[in-house]
Amino acid sequence: MPVNGVLSNSISANDRGLLYGDGVFRTMRLSQGKIQHWPRHYQKLQQDCAAMLLDCPGSNMLTAELGQLVSGHENGVVKIIITRGQGGRGYALPANQASSRILSLMPPPDSPEYFRTKGIKVHVCNMRLAHQPRLAGIKHLNRLENVLAAAEWNNADVAEGILLDIEGNVIEGTRSNLFMISNGELITPDLSRCGVAGIQRERVMEWAAIHSMSCKVEQLSLAKLLEADELFFVNSVIGLWPVHEMLSRIWANSPVAKQIQKWLELEVA
Amino acid sequence: MPVNGVLSNSISANDRGLLYGDGVFRTMRLSQGKIQHWPRHYQKLQQDCAAMLLDCPGSNMLTAELGQLVSGHENGVVKIIITRGQGGRGYALPANQASSRILSLMPPPDSPEYFRTKGIKVHVCNMRLAHQPRLAGIKHLNRLENVLAAAEWNNADVAEGILLDIEGNVIEGTRSNLFMISNGELITPDLSRCGVAGIQRERVMEWAAIHSMSCKVEQLSLAKLLEADELFFVNSVIGLWPVHEMLSRIWANSPVAKQIQKWLELEVA
Repeated sequence: MPVNGVLSNSISANDRGLLYGDGVFRTMRLSQGKIQHWPRHYQKLQQDCAAMLLDCPGSNMLTAELGQLVSGHENGVVKIIITRGQGGRGYALPANQASSRILSLMPPPDSPEYFRTKGIKVHVCNMRLAHQPRLAGIKHLNRLENVLAAAEWNNADVAEGILLDIEGNVIEGTRSNLFMISNGELITPDLSRCGVAGIQRERVMEWAAIHSMSCKVEQLSLAKLLEADELFFVNSVIGLWPVHEMLSRIWANSPVAKQIQKWLELEVA
Repeated sequence: MPVNGVLSNSISANDRGLLYGDGVFRTMRLSQGKIQHWPRHYQKLQQDCAAMLLDCPGSNMLTAELGQLVSGHENGVVKIIITRGQGGRGYALPANQASSRILSLMPPPDSPEYFRTKGIKVHVCNMRLAHQPRLAGIKHLNRLENVLAAAEWNNADVAEGILLDIEGNVIEGTRSNLFMISNGELITPDLSRCGVAGIQRERVMEWAAIHSMSCKVEQLSLAKLLEADELFFVNSVIGLWPVHEMLSRIWANSPVAKQIQKWLELEVA
């Protein structure tokens, strides 16, 4: 993997990404030799870096390095990590920031096809997300909540965990965003106090706008979720997974989710 | 610095410490060739690892590696980072965890002597700490709140920032624990929902017990703090710094804090 433009499998043990989780990342799908939605991911990277007072590497440089990384590969998962690099006295920001960039290419996910078609079984996590408006929405490297949440189950038939916040509001999946459909309307949780706002969440909102379907962002309870007509998770690696089972409730069909899934998979510009 | 027992300045770019901040750390003072309070730090390391479902390296091995690290050095700052190493599918824990350990020795702090004697000027941070009981007290690698708080000031005469939580309770310094003295009583903030419980905080409580002084752990408001007879910060690197100035309030003398400071500096077993 290229680390700051040089082939390497390691980073400095003084990198603030390690010391403090002081950085951001993106995970993207490589499909037919093309990184899906790279311009949109780069825009999010810029926004997240800005929110963290972090220098974002230039688009041309990153695009060129990504091109080299995926050259000769058709499918896979591409990850970019941007950290604040080295320096600074303790937590204080370095006087001259020099971000580190770590690019890596991994094999495509090997999830069973029925996760896409029939849908998945979901665990409701005991781990609750803290409210931190200053970091909400950002895909940063402080991911202990996700790690501890994912440690709650290891039966292979549970494909995702659902995260509530400390007040009991439903927020997201451990690695995905969440939507419900109720009475012909899409609803997705408010992420202004916690959670990560992924680009597939934005794309579902675009689908809704194009198809004149209402899409609300609001506080959601678990009880309301259980009454949903359909429920689904999205992220850039998995695409869209309908929920088949959660807390003994079964969703036999997910007709609208399937339409959205098809659109997400086709519209990969 | 030794990384997993081998001299190196780098770690794997796949280490979960970098990917997720999935690890814990300790910062300790080397003084007269001896790491102060190592057994106590090791005990905290074990507790923090246990709380994070993380394998803690054995005491004998770490003690031996630390001995090699500081051999021939008299004074400095020693840092230990323990991460969950590599592996796992995304956030999920690796089936076979192999922790990484990164030990480093840095020069002693060069803070002006008057921080210890006259006391320090304090910034009240706008950054508020989130409530996350599952991680509260643990010295883990998810430290973005501290980084963003420390970014709020850069005038050299401000030595520490004070952190409140999202409800406005006073919690700690950006890299230290906080005590106030009021009517002959010590009070330190409750850290059950956020903050890091350092070993110098425990030691101040021990001082109080030995000297038959009451020491309460409770919720503290900024208003109450401003009415304190004395105010001080402690950590393993700085020792004890009295507060001289905060929000235009001046504390001219800190007689009890000075007694505690002397005791902390002498009792370094």
